[in-house]
Amino acid sequence: MHNPFKSPERYLLYGDISSKAGHMLSLPEVSDFFAKLIQRVAPKSYQQALGEVYVTGKFLENFSGDQVRFLARSFGVPGNHLGQQSHGFRWPYGPVAVITPFNFPLEIPLLQLMGALYMGNKPILKVDSKVSIVMEQMLRLLHDCGMPVEDVDFINSDGKTMNKILLEAKPRMTLFTGSSRVANKLADDLNGKVKLEDAGFDWKILGPDVHEVDYVSWVCDQDAYACSGQKCSAQSMLFMHENWSKTSLMRQLSDLAARRKLEDLTIGPVLTFTTEAMLGHMKKLLQIPGSKLLFGGEELENHSIPKVYGAIKPTAVFVPIEEILKGENYELVTKEIFGPFQIITEYKDNQLPLVLDALERMHAHLTAAVVSNDPLFIQEVVGKTVNGTTYAGLRARTTGAPQNHWFGPAGDPRGAGIGTPEAIRLVWSCHREVIYDVGPVPHKWQIPPST
Amino acid sequence: MHNPFKSPERYLLYGDISSKAGHMLSLPEVSDFFAKLIQRVAPKSYQQALGEVYVTGKFLENFSGDQVRFLARSFGVPGNHLGQQSHGFRWPYGPVAVITPFNFPLEIPLLQLMGALYMGNKPILKVDSKVSIVMEQMLRLLHDCGMPVEDVDFINSDGKTMNKILLEAKPRMTLFTGSSRVANKLADDLNGKVKLEDAGFDWKILGPDVHEVDYVSWVCDQDAYACSGQKCSAQSMLFMHENWSKTSLMRQLSDLAARRKLEDLTIGPVLTFTTEAMLGHMKKLLQIPGSKLLFGGEELENHSIPKVYGAIKPTAVFVPIEEILKGENYELVTKEIFGPFQIITEYKDNQLPLVLDALERMHAHLTAAVVSNDPLFIQEVVGKTVNGTTYAGLRARTTGAPQNHWFGPAGDPRGAGIGTPEAIRLVWSCHREVIYDVGPVPHKWQIPPST
Amino acid sequence: MHNPFKSPERYLLYGDISSKAGHMLSLPEVSDFFAKLIQRVAPKSYQQALGEVYVTGKFLENFSGDQVRFLARSFGVPGNHLGQQSHGFRWPYGPVAVITPFNFPLEIPLLQLMGALYMGNKPILKVDSKVSIVMEQMLRLLHDCGMPVEDVDFINSDGKTMNKILLEAKPRMTLFTGSSRVANKLADDLNGKVKLEDAGFDWKILGPDVHEVDYVSWVCDQDAYACSGQKCSAQSMLFMHENWSKTSLMRQLSDLAARRKLEDLTIGPVLTFTTEAMLGHMKKLLQIPGSKLLFGGEELENHSIPKVYGAIKPTAVFVPIEEILKGENYELVTKEIFGPFQIITEYKDNQLPLVLDALERMHAHLTAAVVSNDPLFIQEVVGKTVNGTTYAGLRARTTGAPQNHWFGPAGDPRGAGIGTPEAIRLVWSCHREVIYDVGPVPHKWQIPPST
Amino acid sequence: MHNPFKSPERYLLYGDISSKAGHMLSLPEVSDFFAKLIQRVAPKSYQQALGEVYVTGKFLENFSGDQVRFLARSFGVPGNHLGQQSHGFRWPYGPVAVITPFNFPLEIPLLQLMGALYMGNKPILKVDSKVSIVMEQMLRLLHDCGMPVEDVDFINSDGKTMNKILLEAKPRMTLFTGSSRVANKLADDLNGKVKLEDAGFDWKILGPDVHEVDYVSWVCDQDAYACSGQKCSAQSMLFMHENWSKTSLMRQLSDLAARRKLEDLTIGPVLTFTTEAMLGHMKKLLQIPGSKLLFGGEELENHSIPKVYGAIKPTAVFVPIEEILKGENYELVTKEIFGPFQIITEYKDNQLPLVLDALERMHAHLTAAVVSNDPLFIQEVVGKTVNGTTYAGLRARTTGAPQNHWFGPAGDPRGAGIGTPEAIRLVWSCHREVIYDVGPVPHKWQIPPST
Repeated sequence: MHNPFKSPERYLLYGDISSKAGHMLSLPEVSDFFAKLIQRVAPKSYQQALGEVYVTGKFLENFSGDQVRFLARSFGVPGNHLGQQSHGFRWPYGPVAVITPFNFPLEIPLLQLMGALYMGNKPILKVDSKVSIVMEQMLRLLHDCGMPVEDVDFINSDGKTMNKILLEAKPRMTLFTGSSRVANKLADDLNGKVKLEDAGFDWKILGPDVHEVDYVSWVCDQDAYACSGQKCSAQSMLFMHENWSKTSLMRQLSDLAARRKLEDLTIGPVLTFTTEAMLGHMKKLLQIPGSKLLFGGEELENHSIPKVYGAIKPTAVFVPIEEILKGENYELVTKEIFGPFQIITEYKDNQLPLVLDALERMHAHLTAAVVSNDPLFIQEVVGKTVNGTTYAGLRARTTGAPQNHWFGPAGDPRGAGIGTPEAIRLVWSCHREVIYDVGPVPHKWQIPPST
Repeated sequence: MHNPFKSPERYLLYGDISSKAGHMLSLPEVSDFFAKLIQRVAPKSYQQALGEVYVTGKFLENFSGDQVRFLARSFGVPGNHLGQQSHGFRWPYGPVAVITPFNFPLEIPLLQLMGALYMGNKPILKVDSKVSIVMEQMLRLLHDCGMPVEDVDFINSDGKTMNKILLEAKPRMTLFTGSSRVANKLADDLNGKVKLEDAGFDWKILGPDVHEVDYVSWVCDQDAYACSGQKCSAQSMLFMHENWSKTSLMRQLSDLAARRKLEDLTIGPVLTFTTEAMLGHMKKLLQIPGSKLLFGGEELENHSIPKVYGAIKPTAVFVPIEEILKGENYELVTKEIFGPFQIITEYKDNQLPLVLDALERMHAHLTAAVVSNDPLFIQEVVGKTVNGTTYAGLRARTTGAPQNHWFGPAGDPRGAGIGTPEAIRLVWSCHREVIYDVGPVPHKWQIPPST
Repeated sequence: MHNPFKSPERYLLYGDISSKAGHMLSLPEVSDFFAKLIQRVAPKSYQQALGEVYVTGKFLENFSGDQVRFLARSFGVPGNHLGQQSHGFRWPYGPVAVITPFNFPLEIPLLQLMGALYMGNKPILKVDSKVSIVMEQMLRLLHDCGMPVEDVDFINSDGKTMNKILLEAKPRMTLFTGSSRVANKLADDLNGKVKLEDAGFDWKILGPDVHEVDYVSWVCDQDAYACSGQKCSAQSMLFMHENWSKTSLMRQLSDLAARRKLEDLTIGPVLTFTTEAMLGHMKKLLQIPGSKLLFGGEELENHSIPKVYGAIKPTAVFVPIEEILKGENYELVTKEIFGPFQIITEYKDNQLPLVLDALERMHAHLTAAVVSNDPLFIQEVVGKTVNGTTYAGLRARTTGAPQNHWFGPAGDPRGAGIGTPEAIRLVWSCHREVIYDVGPVPHKWQIPPST
Repeated sequence: MHNPFKSPERYLLYGDISSKAGHMLSLPEVSDFFAKLIQRVAPKSYQQALGEVYVTGKFLENFSGDQVRFLARSFGVPGNHLGQQSHGFRWPYGPVAVITPFNFPLEIPLLQLMGALYMGNKPILKVDSKVSIVMEQMLRLLHDCGMPVEDVDFINSDGKTMNKILLEAKPRMTLFTGSSRVANKLADDLNGKVKLEDAGFDWKILGPDVHEVDYVSWVCDQDAYACSGQKCSAQSMLFMHENWSKTSLMRQLSDLAARRKLEDLTIGPVLTFTTEAMLGHMKKLLQIPGSKLLFGGEELENHSIPKVYGAIKPTAVFVPIEEILKGENYELVTKEIFGPFQIITEYKDNQLPLVLDALERMHAHLTAAVVSNDPLFIQEVVGKTVNGTTYAGLRARTTGAPQNHWFGPAGDPRGAGIGTPEAIRLVWSCHREVIYDVGPVPHKWQIPPST
């Protein structure tokens, strides 16, 4: 659609659209509309839904004015002789596809879609059909803010149909956010022409230095159970230094979990696992020696959630660190349950190598948190792990990534990022080098021998 | 092996190794040794082989001293509250593989291998076994310059065995340089965890403004026939504005081709196509209406090149632009012959859209040249094409990319680059975001409601 | 006020303020208000005044959302041993001053003021008192958009008083935009702790390749006479290749100048030169052999402009290139008249060195234009000059710099820039390096001998 | 001399010179020669002198190969319409001057000189005449490595003569490293066209968390007394948290100071203060209530250092923090003694604001060290200070800055930096913006009304 040598005025057009759309989302009536719309299709509290709208609005503000063209910033280097200069550009792919999941019906598709458009691509967008009404409304808002209707193709279909379309249309790049299983199938079907952001089994470590137990408890509760654990960044496993078990932390986790209720959707339906599946998984875990149920482990009461979905109380299961590492248990313990479910374990000073070993064997590397203000401890853990978005420090969390820092997995060349200028440039453009070599040919130059 | 939080002294070690190895390659006896060694296994003139050693040496000089650690440069951004800062790092993948072809036995494997090492990966290296003796000698030189012997695994095998190793070892990233066919198979086998630099069907356009015919003729001859056309950047197709056909250009191309001789390897064996295959392809092309043989088209005389290889004179076939675009001809005309063989065509002012159409339909996008000093013409062609390394201006060429600018395809998320700091960072590292959030927790902070 | 380690939430506050203020300026009633307010104090057409408001609004949009904190982006590099990393930050100066002139009552003070604030400084602002009402109104708008009232000190005074304040308050940095004379005095008084953007004697060269005479004529007219020549970027001298004198260019320049009229302020009062001074200067120029009046050279008719100001028709004087270079003439010819007044000269192919010589001897280096699409000509002129903002190509101009590219002089370490992220970072912050070195101290480390 | 549009081959020439000169300095016989030569003119131990040669060699390695041209890296941004692109270049000033002091006879002049040359300037170099023989030899080495003899003007003179030359030659930029007094005079004489790196009154804070007392003691001794305290980064004041006074720190400082001896120049002559002046200063300090001599405070024994120089034992004076802050004492206590002399004070938890107050009132802001691994403490101190090169963490030091990170003052627009690519770009080049605007003029464009 555009590049630095073609229709550059479109960079400005998208700066304008972003500025206008960002302003719209900052209006209370508009943000309220979208927050409630999100709540109608995705199981999250009003606060969480409004947060999603807020992040989306801030992202749009970030690419107001000239900021879209600044994304296309190139660099130049002097050449070998007079008249030669090499330039590195960020170039669009051309036709691309954006495929996004149910859990963030506005933020994920909007951010990736705009990134694709900013860099000059022609995207086709598919959002999980259960929640696609949100983006359908958002596209109308974008059209109203000046986006040409022909710029985006929006499709509603099941995954199978979409797969067929991709195989025929052969987009030069496909961004997929969703389950690892589908991600790998797509990578295969599209011969690797993909960027992926799949769910991870995200972990948090509480280091040996204990401070601010109230604060840390609250963050743990939010990381594990907000949106009923259905964030790709949700805390699936908590490694707790024994110093923390001497505090009120565990009791507070239990109390905070108990505050959550269906009425305000601080706990709610799970879309991809049934109650039976989750409780079954729990039972298997409880057969591991030394494991125990810390809290939860029951179906929600007084609910009318259909059987195809899941409905359980926020749940935590303790498994001893030595057991986790055993070959026969490891896969079971690190199975991702996309719901309000976490594993908690404890380690002593001399067991940090076991913890690091457990982390290294995980294969998805999305978010992580190292809750410590000891720089040597942080260095040890960060230096030996590879999670994409890693929080370090006393206030570390695993969820709640905003638009101002990169969010995405690491350690995989197919890994996508979302949110920042860097993420947009990496996911939605490639390097193109243009070398100017205009001369002059040196005075009295003569044809040299062949080589 | 290393990252900014682990063994950072290894960045310095590799700065040292590069400095020493770069100095070694600058010594005449060493560069001569490697140039002659290259000539023993790859069909190129001494000048071309020495050029390969020179580029390799300059690359090593580029990463002397602190320049390896500068590759690991990160960035930071202030956070939302006191104590929060986000940092974006370039992180190694871990275990990786490097697989490179016969035509540049030193430059391609060395540059990619060092890139992998600089960023902290643990590479296994496989070079086409016909030429792997060159890197075997180079590794010894690197060991002598201080590289720990355990840092690189070097393997000699056929492709089949290597494929099996990859499937078992599951490297986090595999860099492959070579044919499109194998590239696509690898992308499939490795589920897209690859970066690819495959051969392209590279083109050159001579624009309407004619100057410096001698110079342009010489560049065309070198681009098409140096190394007997066995560079991935070799000029496979020449689009000539009719203004050029009124000059001596065509006659000079023929004369320059005729200068090339087997004795000094300015023309020599073709490793991947037989004489029969190339002449057969030529015959098919000559059946296209209006096509004709411009020069060459015969087997080399007085040669002892085995039949499994090819041996033809530098060859050019003219095909009318209208015929090229016809569905039945297009695939035939744009079939890549990895040898001293090019297509030449001519266009008039009003036929530029046909030329652009022909370019757009090509699927590999490696190098290209726009020979013109008219900025509007350059803009038109560059803005509507997507080749990775594109030269523009009167002195534009398709081959001879040095270490100081990016070389690689564009338009494909799997595309690799080689040579520059940007290429190394892109191919051999991924983004990792570390967000520090050390506090303090605000004075009198209290646990808020769940969300 | 803030830095990455102190009150980082203020970066977000200023992103918010910018977003809101940018939106306000995009509302027709607000932009119309400011355009008319500018017109009441500065002699420019409605279109020009509205353009100033537009550029200001776009600038504010550019720093919406997270873009203020992105200005504070730092970088990090691995250190020599485990636990060491060096980080380069952009740090505020602290107390600073902003002093701006009459000709852009909104754009210049607002852009520099916000730059100072974005980076964390505490500015005192002084705008030329004839026009300071514009910023007085703008500050109220900013307060309304959330800017704390204590963040900016706004002062109305004459230059003398301001000078005294600066000497006492000793700001760490003072940005001055205005005349070279005052700039040099300030540099002296403040011991060099300044960034300066002084007026220049801006030039344009028409190269040997002639195209689009209509367009070029119109740009020349606007560059020389818009805002009655009272832009620091106004074209003061035109070097015309003889090929252009064979076209209608000179006649068109004369016709376009004649279109300008007092009613709509397309020509108007000159604030710093009287009519007498300008016509007197003209007379001196006309005594140079071969010089002649091309058009203008008379007082405006039917005007009521007070005698302390100037009021002349758009004027052009021809002086032969050989005469310009003579020692006795050079200073006279290159004296800057901050009004609707330009010198025009002509050169032949072999006289380009004379032109370059004339350019090199100028001491202020603000804007320049090289009107040519010949890359070799552009390269020759750009490579041998040092103007800060240089336009090259057929559509080159000297005025009308927007917010999306750097505007400022070059060749002087005191030189300021305006508009872009780079300009803000350079003018309003300095480098601070923080090297973390947290250890660990190596196992069994022992105190070495003194050195 | 060169820029991206003029003689770009000179960037490569300087890459070559640096590579060769870096290799030369890595040869033991060459580094030994220069280390001993430095020792003949500057009072430092062999180890310190060799360190200076080592850093210089590493710097040269850093700019091998293409790294000089990479310094001239520009950036580009798409424009408003087809054919427009803006580019930001780093442009040389032209004729410049480099003036450097006695204490680093090789490192400071060489690094700044090469920076000036790399960016395309034409420098005149003056080194303190007591030590200029070192650069005289180094220039010969550079000439031998290919540097054209006309590229650098080298002058030997006293300061007065140099001042006269500068006033006449009017260099576009002058880099001065040396005393604040001369720096301010030069800023005045040259109307602010300077970059300055003046000595500072450098401080170190030991935070509340105590670890590794041996290590910290050793660093304190080196920071205060290596090169007899004649580094611009030498520790002049130590703020010690009371927790440290309960350890062996003070005793170890005293023991380490006592190890230093004249024979191996671990303590030696002071070039800019006499023995009398330093002991006199000490006596004044000892009159402050509560102050006491910790160790040293005597003339060296058995020395033959001429009376015009100073010769005292490593000395430390304790002054209570409350006394330091008193108006009548502050200036005295913070007077810089460029010799082996430091002030030590102690603070309690609740006295940190006093410490920060003391720091804020200092006017030179060169190096600083925050010895603590507590991130909240580091954040508090770094966020409220403005020293240019600040070390933080348990291993923090004030001296020993290498070539891999920026070294220079902050908080002053005239501040220079040394060593890194960023320092070179900032000190030795300015921003130049070139906006290409080649067209086409839109189809059917017509001249609009004047504005």
